[in-house]
Amino acid sequence: MQRLGPLSREAWATLTLQLLRPPCAGASLLSPRVLGGLVQPPAREFAEARLKIQLESDKEKSNFVIKTPKGTRDLNPQQMAIREKILNAVIRCFKCHGAKGLDTPVFELKEVLTEKYGENSRLIYDLKDQGGELLALRYDLTVPFARYLAMNKIKKMKRYHIGKVWRRENPSINQGRYREFCQCDFDIAGQFDPMIPDAECLKIIYEILNTLQLGDFLIKVNDRRILDGMFAVCGVPENKFRFVCSSVDKLGKMSWKDVREEMVGKMGLASEVADCIGDYIQQHGGGSLVEQLLQDPKLSQNKLALEGLRDLKLLFEYLTLFGITEKIIFDLSLARGLDYYTGVIYEAVLLQAPTRQGEEPLGVGSVAAGGRYDDLVGMFDPKGRKVPCVGLSIGVERIFSIVEQRMEATEKIQMTETQVLVAAAQKNFLKERMKLIAELWDAGIKAEMLYKKDPSFLSQLHYCEETGIPLVAIIGERELKDGVIKLRSVASREEVDIKRENIVTEIQRRTCES
Amino acid sequence: MQRLGPLSREAWATLTLQLLRPPCAGASLLSPRVLGGLVQPPAREFAEARLKIQLESDKEKSNFVIKTPKGTRDLNPQQMAIREKILNAVIRCFKCHGAKGLDTPVFELKEVLTEKYGENSRLIYDLKDQGGELLALRYDLTVPFARYLAMNKIKKMKRYHIGKVWRRENPSINQGRYREFCQCDFDIAGQFDPMIPDAECLKIIYEILNTLQLGDFLIKVNDRRILDGMFAVCGVPENKFRFVCSSVDKLGKMSWKDVREEMVGKMGLASEVADCIGDYIQQHGGGSLVEQLLQDPKLSQNKLALEGLRDLKLLFEYLTLFGITEKIIFDLSLARGLDYYTGVIYEAVLLQAPTRQGEEPLGVGSVAAGGRYDDLVGMFDPKGRKVPCVGLSIGVERIFSIVEQRMEATEKIQMTETQVLVAAAQKNFLKERMKLIAELWDAGIKAEMLYKKDPSFLSQLHYCEETGIPLVAIIGERELKDGVIKLRSVASREEVDIKRENIVTEIQRRTCES
Repeated sequence: MQRLGPLSREAWATLTLQLLRPPCAGASLLSPRVLGGLVQPPAREFAEARLKIQLESDKEKSNFVIKTPKGTRDLNPQQMAIREKILNAVIRCFKCHGAKGLDTPVFELKEVLTEKYGENSRLIYDLKDQGGELLALRYDLTVPFARYLAMNKIKKMKRYHIGKVWRRENPSINQGRYREFCQCDFDIAGQFDPMIPDAECLKIIYEILNTLQLGDFLIKVNDRRILDGMFAVCGVPENKFRFVCSSVDKLGKMSWKDVREEMVGKMGLASEVADCIGDYIQQHGGGSLVEQLLQDPKLSQNKLALEGLRDLKLLFEYLTLFGITEKIIFDLSLARGLDYYTGVIYEAVLLQAPTRQGEEPLGVGSVAAGGRYDDLVGMFDPKGRKVPCVGLSIGVERIFSIVEQRMEATEKIQMTETQVLVAAAQKNFLKERMKLIAELWDAGIKAEMLYKKDPSFLSQLHYCEETGIPLVAIIGERELKDGVIKLRSVASREEVDIKRENIVTEIQRRTCES
Repeated sequence: MQRLGPLSREAWATLTLQLLRPPCAGASLLSPRVLGGLVQPPAREFAEARLKIQLESDKEKSNFVIKTPKGTRDLNPQQMAIREKILNAVIRCFKCHGAKGLDTPVFELKEVLTEKYGENSRLIYDLKDQGGELLALRYDLTVPFARYLAMNKIKKMKRYHIGKVWRRENPSINQGRYREFCQCDFDIAGQFDPMIPDAECLKIIYEILNTLQLGDFLIKVNDRRILDGMFAVCGVPENKFRFVCSSVDKLGKMSWKDVREEMVGKMGLASEVADCIGDYIQQHGGGSLVEQLLQDPKLSQNKLALEGLRDLKLLFEYLTLFGITEKIIFDLSLARGLDYYTGVIYEAVLLQAPTRQGEEPLGVGSVAAGGRYDDLVGMFDPKGRKVPCVGLSIGVERIFSIVEQRMEATEKIQMTETQVLVAAAQKNFLKERMKLIAELWDAGIKAEMLYKKDPSFLSQLHYCEETGIPLVAIIGERELKDGVIKLRSVASREEVDIKRENIVTEIQRRTCES
């Protein structure tokens, strides 16, 4: 733009328009299609000039506010330092359980995502049809994983995947909900003996929440088969299972009264049916509730419910062996929004300390969730061959908000790992600084210098204090003459001369100790 | 879908359509808009049913092939392991130079990307307008960085950013070019003394290519001001500078003859003008070529060229201090495609060993590139306040292809970090295995077990060999009675009894040693 030439914009525009033969008749002269379309070579130069004029006038028109798109945000270096710590802990745990890494494209063929997320499908971001395939940004990491398994005919795999996903939700940013957010998924695919991988998934959630020291938490567990069995014995028509399940999922955000109203008013369930559901879903407890429901005269007659309850019983046995039952609760109201779950489902919530004695602990929202989805891979296989899967997703955004708040309050966050600043005591030492810092870099030492020919000594010390660099390697006239480097500890202000040939070893020794 | 009920699809469809009152007259009954639009509560349940029918029929129609979108790919665990190694080396180097982390959303407001990439703008992926802002996937990490600086009024920052970018190119996948690919960027923003940060950027490229041991390489250097000065003294009209610059950029992919033909035939340059450019851009050399051009009677009369040459002279001095000039070449034909560069530009290419004696080494394409862009931040500032920047981008995809080929040929790639498999020697030891593995996990040991109640001993050993797990912790009747665990080294087949209470320490000791 800056180099359009000595002609004024208007004169240039007139000239261009005179010279221009539109690539097709009827096309608007300033049609934005030129941007995406292919312009033939002879017209190209002028089309580009024309485009530039158009863009320039667009620019003048818009004068837009610089921001990130709605529901998204940048992560500044301080936030990145915190995020790195959290992700490292999560990845370490996943690797501890033998998971392999996997990466998939951020967008999928639109059809891959269709029919997987129930009413949430409207939250999917579609890409513009730019003369290619119909594409959409992924909504989670589970469907791409299932697509990957089916596409490569993989029958068995334990993988983790850290990546962003996108949902066009109306974000209430204060609660740490964004339209772009990071998920950390661990999944086990394969035909195995019941509940062994499922129990490991719960153990992983437990380990991660423990390691991150987020405060007290609870992992709610239920089973889609128990929900479906319960709907059946209460008399819900089968074609309404999904909708009723979605309603149940709202319990917690909505009162039972409102959920009941939705069931009766909107879905046309009979009052007795809704009340029957209400009696069940207000129950929660431990392994003993599973035993109790196995004796429930109605529920135990339903094949699906019975399967679910028997599996939950086994699950509780395994969780006892893993020593984590004190954090697990069997909660019949847990439904999970996603369509693809077929068996055990779970969701971890953080508990706030009760404000007054005797009050129930308040959940501050889900920080991890998952479940079993035995049919999803089969949906991608031409012959419908199933690969049973179970997995979990860590909601790092919410965890991140909590840790960020806590760290901001208590500690100074180190954003760089620099070990030493190469500084000069007098003027005209740029060359010496550059020679020395190159030596340090070549030895793998994390080193910085100020990008000034002659920075003041004070500004160099100040930079160390500001950014947390612990050591300063100082060159001056005397040091150069004596063949030494003065090494200064920023914290203690102690200075000691080190022979130039020993400086690398000495810095390595000191940074090893700390 | 599986639970639409006992009615046949056709019967259900008829029923639904009878009951349905379309939310607005004239809307097609099977309009796909329902997917994205908001349907009012009373009609919602039926609209959902209607949607499901539509989706089902879509599904029947399409019967699509499961694949990743054109120009994209999954990274399998083996590829992820290689990528992790490369990225760790790159990040380590960036941190070694004191860079802070930064993350930005994968999409930006469309306007942020407009007018930054010249004719490449047509390669930008736009998001569908779903009733929100006009958005586009980022094309590189530089423009988001500049937007971040301007938005937050940051005048000084040294950051790195690892992330994916998207370009709708026609991918020639064999050459390692994709529409979705990863970039690793390091940039220094701020007003500093000339060429000090620029020299550091070149040092970083040198260090990374050295560390990754990709074979011989060369870093070409030029300056946009020298190019513009050269165009001026050769008699190119100023409004054609950009187009001629793009042509020059094609040298290497195209012969000089073809580039000349483009300049004369398409752009209407006089033959003498093209030949004058040709004389210059076919020159390359070291610092001495800079000196020589500083004496060039025509070029040295041009203010811009003179500035560029003087800066390059200083740059070569600094690169000498950094000890890396043997890999640097001043190449007047280097132009770089992107619009935003204003000063020094550079590009690193790998060299293949010449096939026959006396042949010139063959470039295998760019693996790193960058340059100075002093005006980009100002384009986002309402008052146009500039923040000079210089930076580099490592082309990890190409590097990744090279390392992948090499590693596949020479070594077995370890995809997991599991240290020990918890195994049983006899049947009915699932509970004991689960108790032991929970202990190991709690101690931070990377452990796996097979998800079978009674796996055969052989299948457990086989799993270790297959996945590279070095140790097996074995429980059996005797071990349980004696209060020991048998620890087996997979490689040596040695087995030794360890007291149950010492097993954690012993595994930690052994894995520390290796």
